[in-house]
Amino acid sequence: MPVSVTRRIISAEAAFRAVEAAVARGRERGVAVVAAAVDIGGDLVACLRADGAFAASISIARDKAYTAAVFGASTDGLSNALKDNPVLHHGIAIRPGVVLFGGGLPIVEDGAVIGAVGVSGGSEDDDRECARAGVAAALAA
Amino acid sequence: MPVSVTRRIISAEAAFRAVEAAVARGRERGVAVVAAAVDIGGDLVACLRADGAFAASISIARDKAYTAAVFGASTDGLSNALKDNPVLHHGIAIRPGVVLFGGGLPIVEDGAVIGAVGVSGGSEDDDRECARAGVAAALAA
Amino acid sequence: MPVSVTRRIISAEAAFRAVEAAVARGRERGVAVVAAAVDIGGDLVACLRADGAFAASISIARDKAYTAAVFGASTDGLSNALKDNPVLHHGIAIRPGVVLFGGGLPIVEDGAVIGAVGVSGGSEDDDRECARAGVAAALAA
Amino acid sequence: MPVSVTRRIISAEAAFRAVEAAVARGRERGVAVVAAAVDIGGDLVACLRADGAFAASISIARDKAYTAAVFGASTDGLSNALKDNPVLHHGIAIRPGVVLFGGGLPIVEDGAVIGAVGVSGGSEDDDRECARAGVAAALAA
Repeated sequence: MPVSVTRRIISAEAAFRAVEAAVARGRERGVAVVAAAVDIGGDLVACLRADGAFAASISIARDKAYTAAVFGASTDGLSNALKDNPVLHHGIAIRPGVVLFGGGLPIVEDGAVIGAVGVSGGSEDDDRECARAGVAAALAA
Repeated sequence: MPVSVTRRIISAEAAFRAVEAAVARGRERGVAVVAAAVDIGGDLVACLRADGAFAASISIARDKAYTAAVFGASTDGLSNALKDNPVLHHGIAIRPGVVLFGGGLPIVEDGAVIGAVGVSGGSEDDDRECARAGVAAALAA
Repeated sequence: MPVSVTRRIISAEAAFRAVEAAVARGRERGVAVVAAAVDIGGDLVACLRADGAFAASISIARDKAYTAAVFGASTDGLSNALKDNPVLHHGIAIRPGVVLFGGGLPIVEDGAVIGAVGVSGGSEDDDRECARAGVAAALAA
Repeated sequence: MPVSVTRRIISAEAAFRAVEAAVARGRERGVAVVAAAVDIGGDLVACLRADGAFAASISIARDKAYTAAVFGASTDGLSNALKDNPVLHHGIAIRPGVVLFGGGLPIVEDGAVIGAVGVSGGSEDDDRECARAGVAAALAA
């Protein structure tokens, strides 16, 4: 019986590329965002806050990434999966660190979640698009 | 490759004027309020509690100012912007330090948010009007 | 009667350079560190965790940077300034977010504190040296 | 048997004078301080942060005022009274909101504690002197 199992975890380099790309995509869209990249335990690997981003976005970006990582789903997808069960939706929504609106995406390599990206600072659509840019950059080895 | 960016931050004098004017406006309206003024990071610069104001208002005033500063919008405006998206509204409403009812206003100088004023202790309309008086006093150089 | 005062704040680019350089210096020394860069209010601007760094280092790095920023002194310098006054030293040491051992350095531009770097993950000497590399990179415009 | 007792509590006006005078005294001494004035329950009545004061001082000033008010003694006097009993000193020192170094002074009117002033931002001597100026201003009706 094996003593250990092997898990893939996002590398520092990939996390760094992710947050840089997410912030750059925000700049292209005219919004100052915060981007966070976390590992599969939801712990921070990289973070970057654009000049002028509102301070509220620091913890929201991290919490979106945390949520996507520890549930293995996008924040939108998780919210959607819970939407027909209001008690469950609320019960998950109020847990510490959970965010159930758009802008958190898991990073999936060969079918395995290796971490997540969270973005905050623009509209939900801005944040989603920046998070997608972050995931793409993380996977562009 | 810039080392620093320059930001305007509300001065101590302007913050002091703001909380004094907000409390005075409350007195004119017959309500004892707490007024708080914060910088762009949401940290307190000045605070004043009228004689007889309820103790609950101390932290509510500060949180309204914090919310307006870190989101760069009035607490009413932020609530309004989120009102068609219940998941987003609830998700923001439950974050620590966030208040989504009236009485928090950003202080904007030449288009830049330099801080915010929050007032609590009266009706929502009282608090809004006192916050407006605070912002006006802050900007009356 | 000024409405605002002007403060320099570390730019996102400089913060990004700082955490990248601090982690790279750790790699040269054979240690996996976490580096954090914060603004003058102690709020995170950039963070990077090396592959294999211990999870404990995430919050320690951030707290070292926070301490150096909000007291405007290195964590070593602050500790040293307090060392002849045990009550004061202990009283500061137990405050939330404060770290009084080596590895937190303010970033000073033209005499003004614009932010700080904190590093955790190696020995105190490793962390100090990585933080120095981070500050140097931040200022290398 | 009486239903209530009467307590004197620092007025908003006196608290406002106190924080203004304490910050002004700091300016004369060349230090940027935060001053807080609280009621006999330790709750904030007025606060003012000088331009350029380090962010760490906001909560320290409030905690010094809180300590002086809720123990009815200066932070120095309280620390001194506990100094021969290390277990007690430590046990008090680590309670939330307690500060046992200089800069917190009760405001006493006709023998009754009506509130307190706390100052942080300079050396302990700066903070003590600014707190004294604050108390004097509060009592100068």
